[in-house]
Amino acid sequence: MENNTIQQQTEQPAAYVYTPDQLLQNWLGHRRVTRRLIEAFPEDALFNYSIGGMRPFADMAKEIISMSGPGVRGVVTDDWTPIAGLDHHTGKITATTKAELLQLWDNATEVITNYWPQISLQRFQEKVVAFGQYEGLVNSTLQYIVDNEIHHRGQGYVYLRALGIEPPAFYDRS
Amino acid sequence: MENNTIQQQTEQPAAYVYTPDQLLQNWLGHRRVTRRLIEAFPEDALFNYSIGGMRPFADMAKEIISMSGPGVRGVVTDDWTPIAGLDHHTGKITATTKAELLQLWDNATEVITNYWPQISLQRFQEKVVAFGQYEGLVNSTLQYIVDNEIHHRGQGYVYLRALGIEPPAFYDRS
Repeated sequence: MENNTIQQQTEQPAAYVYTPDQLLQNWLGHRRVTRRLIEAFPEDALFNYSIGGMRPFADMAKEIISMSGPGVRGVVTDDWTPIAGLDHHTGKITATTKAELLQLWDNATEVITNYWPQISLQRFQEKVVAFGQYEGLVNSTLQYIVDNEIHHRGQGYVYLRALGIEPPAFYDRS
Repeated sequence: MENNTIQQQTEQPAAYVYTPDQLLQNWLGHRRVTRRLIEAFPEDALFNYSIGGMRPFADMAKEIISMSGPGVRGVVTDDWTPIAGLDHHTGKITATTKAELLQLWDNATEVITNYWPQISLQRFQEKVVAFGQYEGLVNSTLQYIVDNEIHHRGQGYVYLRALGIEPPAFYDRS
């Protein structure tokens, strides 16, 4: 154990774009905003409102959930089978109320925060085949999952504005 | 010169979340998608169409432009005054046609790619007061600029869908 600690300290770079924890904290900040967006939707609109033939925001949130927790767990374990909250027959998340969706959201956050510290610095530069089909480096795989969340959340902002509801501030990550 | 090269090699970490160039390439991929989104808008809709009282997508693109090139240049030079394409009286970007907007977009991309290699690895962990008012580490400042682009571009996707236009694929960064 002591040997491991010493080895890790030696391997820590003196300068770096990100520490793993900085990248995680940025993501968790975004997840707090996205959670507030889910909360801001009226229940019916969350599951039924859409613009231009797009999906309701609940479906986007389910996609984000299905990629986030399982994505981080997959990076650590190389096990890409779906986890809790996913319907094992269809691979799809089942949630029909806002409370259920928020519960699955919080479960995913717990999976992320539990598994993330197990991603070694070396791991970020290794190749993975995410979800059994998307080949890329670990850093770009994780970034894709975060960017996809920001992308769909931006769409949710338009839904809320169209519904006459003030969305949470983009810059407030607290 | 040879000494510098040796020193840089010594300072390079053996493992890292991102190399500076990986972070840049991820951003440039996003910028190609955003540029395709600008192109996909009919000229009139680009400057006038909106949903729920939000800004037309041209105004969002102008915001992205005003943060991107000047942001990277500011990180390198600590000079946060507006640059080419900004109206020096109002601090706002002036572009009234799609062609003008795309030209300013490309100018910003050039500023980013020219200045980015001058950001040292150490610099990413230093504090800055971006645009003279936003205090944060360089990495989170640059990430905010990229995330803000993804956020508003996601909104532009809804505008396009509402206009009956198929937006460019989010996952295609080529």
